[in-house]
Amino acid sequence: TRNIELAVVAGDGIGIEVVEQGLAVLDAALAGTGTTISPTAFDLGAQRWHRTGETLTDEDLASIRTHDAILLGAIGDPSVPSGVLERGLLLKLRFALDHYVNLRPGKLYKGVKSPLAEPGEIDFVVVREGTEGPYVGNGGAIRVGTPHEVANEVSVNTAFGVERVVRDAFARAQARPRKHLTLVHKHNVLVHAGHLWRRTVEAVNADFPDVTTDYLHVDAATIFLTTNPSRFDVIVTDNLFGDILTDQAAAITGGIGLAASANINPDRTAPSMFEPVHGSAPDIAGQGKADPTATVLSVAMLLDHLGLTDESRRVEAAVAADLVERGARVRSTAEVGTELADRVRG
Amino acid sequence: TRNIELAVVAGDGIGIEVVEQGLAVLDAALAGTGTTISPTAFDLGAQRWHRTGETLTDEDLASIRTHDAILLGAIGDPSVPSGVLERGLLLKLRFALDHYVNLRPGKLYKGVKSPLAEPGEIDFVVVREGTEGPYVGNGGAIRVGTPHEVANEVSVNTAFGVERVVRDAFARAQARPRKHLTLVHKHNVLVHAGHLWRRTVEAVNADFPDVTTDYLHVDAATIFLTTNPSRFDVIVTDNLFGDILTDQAAAITGGIGLAASANINPDRTAPSMFEPVHGSAPDIAGQGKADPTATVLSVAMLLDHLGLTDESRRVEAAVAADLVERGARVRSTAEVGTELADRVRG
Ligand SMILES: CC(C)[C@H](C(=O)O)[C@@H](O)C(=O)O
Ligand SMILES: CC(C)[C@H](C(=O)O)[C@@H](O)C(=O)O
Repeated sequence: TRNIELAVVAGDGIGIEVVEQGLAVLDAALAGTGTTISPTAFDLGAQRWHRTGETLTDEDLASIRTHDAILLGAIGDPSVPSGVLERGLLLKLRFALDHYVNLRPGKLYKGVKSPLAEPGEIDFVVVREGTEGPYVGNGGAIRVGTPHEVANEVSVNTAFGVERVVRDAFARAQARPRKHLTLVHKHNVLVHAGHLWRRTVEAVNADFPDVTTDYLHVDAATIFLTTNPSRFDVIVTDNLFGDILTDQAAAITGGIGLAASANINPDRTAPSMFEPVHGSAPDIAGQGKADPTATVLSVAMLLDHLGLTDESRRVEAAVAADLVERGARVRSTAEVGTELADRVRG
Repeated sequence: TRNIELAVVAGDGIGIEVVEQGLAVLDAALAGTGTTISPTAFDLGAQRWHRTGETLTDEDLASIRTHDAILLGAIGDPSVPSGVLERGLLLKLRFALDHYVNLRPGKLYKGVKSPLAEPGEIDFVVVREGTEGPYVGNGGAIRVGTPHEVANEVSVNTAFGVERVVRDAFARAQARPRKHLTLVHKHNVLVHAGHLWRRTVEAVNADFPDVTTDYLHVDAATIFLTTNPSRFDVIVTDNLFGDILTDQAAAITGGIGLAASANINPDRTAPSMFEPVHGSAPDIAGQGKADPTATVLSVAMLLDHLGLTDESRRVEAAVAADLVERGARVRSTAEVGTELADRVRG
């Protein structure tokens, strides 16, 4: 028997509610498989910060590192100054654990209504770089609060960092039927970073000769996500563009209630982290209204990452079946979770 | 009688075709008004660069400065390395002429089919900052082409630059029925720049107390542009976010064939520049297929900027009427332009 040590960071708001259901489905998926799971809850997020002033201590991080994977709900609360938890906790986890592949599928499941009039088949995946770009936190400001304030933000991009994520994206493209990779950037304006990305895609393509590639400026990408999302197979892009495009991708495939993500360390030098794309949604927190589906799909990605491929498929199939039948039924967070767990048990 | 000295930068690809029609409509709008127009063509763009290696010389710029306004078609060609014309010509004009208000309406005209299933009423305007942010060209790279390359891009934001564009956006919001302003940024990650923007909006709001405001992260903004674009009235945002959101805005309102823009120097220390949002579209260039409507709507913005309000309204009304009736008719660039000019003449 194998035991999975899972770090659970439920976080804030609806994060707590959806993670509970994610864990229930995970239990259901592993029941009778010989694989067991030991979840450890980490008290991180707004409440901890209010109580102690801490976001993520070295001890927290060291302890999280000893786990096989992380399930995260959502981080953030209006009572905490903007950026404190995002930079001090969520991004700190992604950077410290070297989650350089932020994987976000854009898939329109059967039964889900897209806000697009003619969505067509939508089934792509965004490989968002997770440890560089404008997210590095290398900004600063002078004369803050005066008429002479200057506030800079630096996007840092390295050959090392770009190549490893591009390579990962090519491998994913190669494993898919269409074998197509789209680089999204803005190399006509951000010429230094953009040209590094472009040269890297061209160079790595030599090792994946059966993968076709194209390039879109980020502004044009938002157009095609509106008019022809079927054209996308694998998208590789930087941290900020990936953030933007994956919210748009979620919108056209039924909303962030369904959008899953995986923050992957492909070298497995630290645990990978699985989280819904949505935030803590303080407006509906504590009301049992949140849809746990995005978390459950993130659990499917977690199982896949741990090599539990059959279990992952069963979880995704349960969600797919649920989406076909859910129609306009209004269910609580727990009801959705319980029904999904029941389906997984079969 | 008043004469308008117009600098015409047709540029590349379809830019040449659409500008011709834009000028025809401009002529029609001014006919019999007592205002005349003297267009001066500037040979700028890919051909000039190939011939001379020049993008925009000091002499070009000095000459353009003497004009009352600029009409621009499109800049860019695949035969020119990416960034050369964008940075050396288009952005150089925007920066040198201090076009700090890049105004881009997002309006769904009657008769136009949106790719959204339930678009609702869409009528907002994006005030995109035009002279700062990640567009400043303050990037650089070391060890280019080696495994140790580092490529940085710096977003520069100043209190001076942010306040003037925010003030302009508030004034525009105040002049509109809904009087609502949405700031779009990403202040939970780009904390220095983002907080400058946020503080500035809060501070300037004191001078426009009847304008309501809200804030969206850029990723969330792409969701609302998909699910509920009616919520937007005036959006103010930085140069890069504005670039991205205005292409998405064009997509949901019928495509970049209809999207107009104005690069405005509100202090009138240099001529403002009016251009369609679309690019040079080399794939359809020279075939008479391009829709000149975006350019014609940009001409309406030009007339408005020059205080020719009635003429501006007549041009916009001609476009609105044409859009109601065009249906699926396929017309050439010249046919659309001629019909619009005819409508303007009445
Ligand atoms: C909360 C925020 C820091 C985060 C991001 O920008 O990456 C979120 O938007 C996401 O996409 O996971
Ligand atoms: C061509 C390019 C430099 C330009 C921009 O990014 O501003 C274009 O996309 C636009 O929106 O006008």
